[in-house]
Amino acid sequence: MKSFKEIPGSIVAPQGFLTSGVFCDIKRLGTGKGSNKGQKRDLALIVSEVPATVAGMFTTNQVCAAPVKVCAERVKKGAARAIVANSGNANACTGKQGLNDAREMTAFVAAVYDRRKLKIKIPPAVTDRRYSISAEHVLVGSTGRIGVALPMANVRAGINEAVTLLDNSPASAAHAMEAIMTSDTRPKQIAVEFKLSGKTARVGGICKGAGMIQPGMSATGKRPAALHATMLCFITTDAAIDPEMLQAALQAAVVQSFNRITVDGDMSTNDTVLVLANGLAGNRKFGVRSSEFGIFQAALGHVCLELAKMIVRDGEGVHRVVTVRVNGAKTVQDADAAARAVANSPLVKTSWHGGDPNWGRIMCALGYSPANVAENQVDIGYSAPGGKQILWSLKRGQPTKARFKQLCAAVSPKEFDLHINLNLGKASAVIYAADLTEAYVDFNKGDVGDPTTLGG
Amino acid sequence: MKSFKEIPGSIVAPQGFLTSGVFCDIKRLGTGKGSNKGQKRDLALIVSEVPATVAGMFTTNQVCAAPVKVCAERVKKGAARAIVANSGNANACTGKQGLNDAREMTAFVAAVYDRRKLKIKIPPAVTDRRYSISAEHVLVGSTGRIGVALPMANVRAGINEAVTLLDNSPASAAHAMEAIMTSDTRPKQIAVEFKLSGKTARVGGICKGAGMIQPGMSATGKRPAALHATMLCFITTDAAIDPEMLQAALQAAVVQSFNRITVDGDMSTNDTVLVLANGLAGNRKFGVRSSEFGIFQAALGHVCLELAKMIVRDGEGVHRVVTVRVNGAKTVQDADAAARAVANSPLVKTSWHGGDPNWGRIMCALGYSPANVAENQVDIGYSAPGGKQILWSLKRGQPTKARFKQLCAAVSPKEFDLHINLNLGKASAVIYAADLTEAYVDFNKGDVGDPTTLGG
Repeated sequence: MKSFKEIPGSIVAPQGFLTSGVFCDIKRLGTGKGSNKGQKRDLALIVSEVPATVAGMFTTNQVCAAPVKVCAERVKKGAARAIVANSGNANACTGKQGLNDAREMTAFVAAVYDRRKLKIKIPPAVTDRRYSISAEHVLVGSTGRIGVALPMANVRAGINEAVTLLDNSPASAAHAMEAIMTSDTRPKQIAVEFKLSGKTARVGGICKGAGMIQPGMSATGKRPAALHATMLCFITTDAAIDPEMLQAALQAAVVQSFNRITVDGDMSTNDTVLVLANGLAGNRKFGVRSSEFGIFQAALGHVCLELAKMIVRDGEGVHRVVTVRVNGAKTVQDADAAARAVANSPLVKTSWHGGDPNWGRIMCALGYSPANVAENQVDIGYSAPGGKQILWSLKRGQPTKARFKQLCAAVSPKEFDLHINLNLGKASAVIYAADLTEAYVDFNKGDVGDPTTLGG
Repeated sequence: MKSFKEIPGSIVAPQGFLTSGVFCDIKRLGTGKGSNKGQKRDLALIVSEVPATVAGMFTTNQVCAAPVKVCAERVKKGAARAIVANSGNANACTGKQGLNDAREMTAFVAAVYDRRKLKIKIPPAVTDRRYSISAEHVLVGSTGRIGVALPMANVRAGINEAVTLLDNSPASAAHAMEAIMTSDTRPKQIAVEFKLSGKTARVGGICKGAGMIQPGMSATGKRPAALHATMLCFITTDAAIDPEMLQAALQAAVVQSFNRITVDGDMSTNDTVLVLANGLAGNRKFGVRSSEFGIFQAALGHVCLELAKMIVRDGEGVHRVVTVRVNGAKTVQDADAAARAVANSPLVKTSWHGGDPNWGRIMCALGYSPANVAENQVDIGYSAPGGKQILWSLKRGQPTKARFKQLCAAVSPKEFDLHINLNLGKASAVIYAADLTEAYVDFNKGDVGDPTTLGG
């Protein structure tokens, strides 16, 4: 039985979080003045009403964006109050100016928040000067074009408006969600509820990401064994949890979710997952070996995995989502390498698009992967998502008696699981992957009339 | 000045080689009886009239086809007389049956050749029993569907006909070329002529390959530092050269040519390059430090590089060919890894298709490559193929003053060079790459009505 349940809502489902999303014309560089003229919003703000602990995971791309650099530094200190994020500009490959701009965004949030005119009634504690925000406690995330300086006048106008609009309504959360979307066609959000020492606690999250998706995030910048979206994910919780425990829980959750998806195999310069925990649920603090930690971990893990899967489903041009399950590998590294080789092979991905149960291309990709593979040991089969009933197409390297029509039927749904057993050991890995379609190519051919570059 | 010149022709340009290409219905499994009913030919035969030395390079894919296994074993012995090759079936993932079939193909060639009825007049020596062919001296190459047993009755009928038709006419060479094509839209052939100790010698070659292209061949099955087509390439020469020298020359040539191309990053199960040297040019044998070896090496290198480039130009759905030139890397491994990350990034490849000089995606790919990259050191620019005049778009991580229209013009030709200087060391690497187009995806979606799998 699950120790949590899904509930409606997202980042304002937990107590004590305020949010907003505004249009300030970050992409078009200066025609707007912070007024929303029916354009997609492009600046989001999330604020905890009280001090919170923080954890984060970031891209391991050596070319990493200014906001990633700023966040990675600040998250180490374990405390934060707010996240400001924009779409339309990745603030990547922007040098010193970029770093200055990222820091100025955070400082401006802090400054404006302190002199804000509140439109809504919030608990008296919050208006206490103790709860004013310091720049160091503001984190920042960006996604969009690479190599273009942020239009800071617009950004400042946006922040001014965003602070004014902060509240805890579902509408504001939807606005914040919209503001971080780029090529996403759908909002991605989730919330769960669970009990910690008798108190009700919640975790809620939003994320974006559709192309340049194969995250390989770590807390330290040191690469995990497996690599490679711009994806941004912002998570809030009212659980009381120490920053070290929060980081441990997030790391475990990200390694099993965002770091296990791939749309196109391109790892972004801006991948960022941040979680703020403000303790307003009032639970007792817990240790890493406690059942409470297990409960929190399960809830956070579910939020990250569901959000990660939403990214794959909404991937650029994606028609089919395939969960590649490799078992029987000699080592975990082998399992991961085998799954990624299959998940990123253009020939395998185009066969998925075509609804073709092509095991030859899968064998070929396994063979050139760095994993140990013995041709005469490989099993390949299909099931429904998470299904136990597997239709085997290949057993120990030999085609089974499964009829071709049956195999075609197995790969025709929008989502299915691909099972690969290498039969060489006990290690396994799962990668959430997508097909490669003409729509992906068409979308990414780019808008050549436009002298800037899409990316991060 | 070049020590060789290109001449018309291909594998029968050197003295003493006979060839033919026939239709025996290998792909459709049994409707034909060796008669050519206007179908594309699918079985090629190349024979040296006299004993020859041989060298070969093969895929390093762990899942490698039966013909590759048979050839790799036989090439080690250094002597061969003939190559039989088919398209329509890769004879990969076919188990013991596959190995038996590959060996039977070679034995059948030997047997039929010995009792052939010659239609053309050839030197008396050849009819000498000394020049009968042993099965061990016949090599075999296959390309096409993976995981389907060869229709051996058709193959035998094809070999019977192919032996009868053997001659040294350009028309036969064209038939052999056609017989190894799969998704290729154009034949790929070249011949060069040069002098060795006063005698005129020639090297000629044919090759095929359009998808599943990123060869990483070695002679030993041990993977080279850089990996990853089905491509088949058969080269003939009338130079007299010892097998060890021939292998050394071929290895050097392949590492700088076929192993440096990528269409889709998928390394095939069947990649094979074979060269037969029959000595009929009558030159003196030469040592590895002789100028003759340099001359032979230059000629063979040119043949391999030109054939490799033809494969990229004729890649599935390819609109643009881009030579990625990485300089200033810390190590050769870094240079290679950086060039391959850029050359295989779906986002970079789609931007090439769109004619978009998108340096942000290039920076992103460099950043996630295993190579050492410092964002503020990278130069990115463009030139005409082989051109010295480079239009820099980025210098030391900063956009230059190059106008966007100029940059667009630089990436609009069918072929251009991309120059990347990492400015961290002295190592360099070149990768011959292609764009990613809707046509590639459309082609590889596959023919779902067809219960077999394309590949090797």
